[in-house]
Amino acid sequence: MPKISQEIKNTMAKTKIIPVATASKDGMPNVIPFAFVKCYDDETLVLADNFMQKSMKNLEENPFVSICVWDTEGNQSFQIKGKAAVETEGKVFNETVAWVKEAMPQLSPKSAILVKISNIYICQPGPDLGKEL
Amino acid sequence: MPKISQEIKNTMAKTKIIPVATASKDGMPNVIPFAFVKCYDDETLVLADNFMQKSMKNLEENPFVSICVWDTEGNQSFQIKGKAAVETEGKVFNETVAWVKEAMPQLSPKSAILVKISNIYICQPGPDLGKEL
Repeated sequence: MPKISQEIKNTMAKTKIIPVATASKDGMPNVIPFAFVKCYDDETLVLADNFMQKSMKNLEENPFVSICVWDTEGNQSFQIKGKAAVETEGKVFNETVAWVKEAMPQLSPKSAILVKISNIYICQPGPDLGKEL
Repeated sequence: MPKISQEIKNTMAKTKIIPVATASKDGMPNVIPFAFVKCYDDETLVLADNFMQKSMKNLEENPFVSICVWDTEGNQSFQIKGKAAVETEGKVFNETVAWVKEAMPQLSPKSAILVKISNIYICQPGPDLGKEL
């Protein structure tokens, strides 16, 4: 199982707005900007669902997610793919609500999305472009 | 057919790195950061393919594209969806090569991707979130 390295964490931290892509079962892609994406552990991301509409419908029929992060100054970029599980109660959900409300008290996340990482790819131009980590 | 308004153009200009999402025929999403995305006309985007790998394989079997743009200061965000046509010669390809080389002479685009826009959605939080333009 691929691990989220410190280098990837640093690149995620530089990407203030992280695009999250889903697709319908018949393959129509959908990408939206997310403010609340972080590592849950070294093999899992957590996303806070504050405003998802079509993306959530997609996840209900097709649980796969792709995100990309970049640091243009450091010339680093990664694509992370995984399978999502939507949590609307319990520990992860409660932690996600607390995380969001600490930053933006006016928000009320509808769910927490745990993404178990299946693949990480190098995205920056260069000899390693496309390489799977 | 939805048109790219001046408001959307301004938001595109604020998004220095634009995420471009595709999906395989069986619905695995793929999103990568693009530097070269612009309006070709009010109903069409053009993307320069400098480094595409999996995204191009996806387009060969499933031509649909989703991009998102945002301006966090202006609280504007849009998602644009459309159908891609890949051009490797002719007027649009030659114009795309010239556009890229003017900014980064070391690059040599492999193709130009024309995206005929099918849908534009409001993406920023608020009462119009998800509204189709």
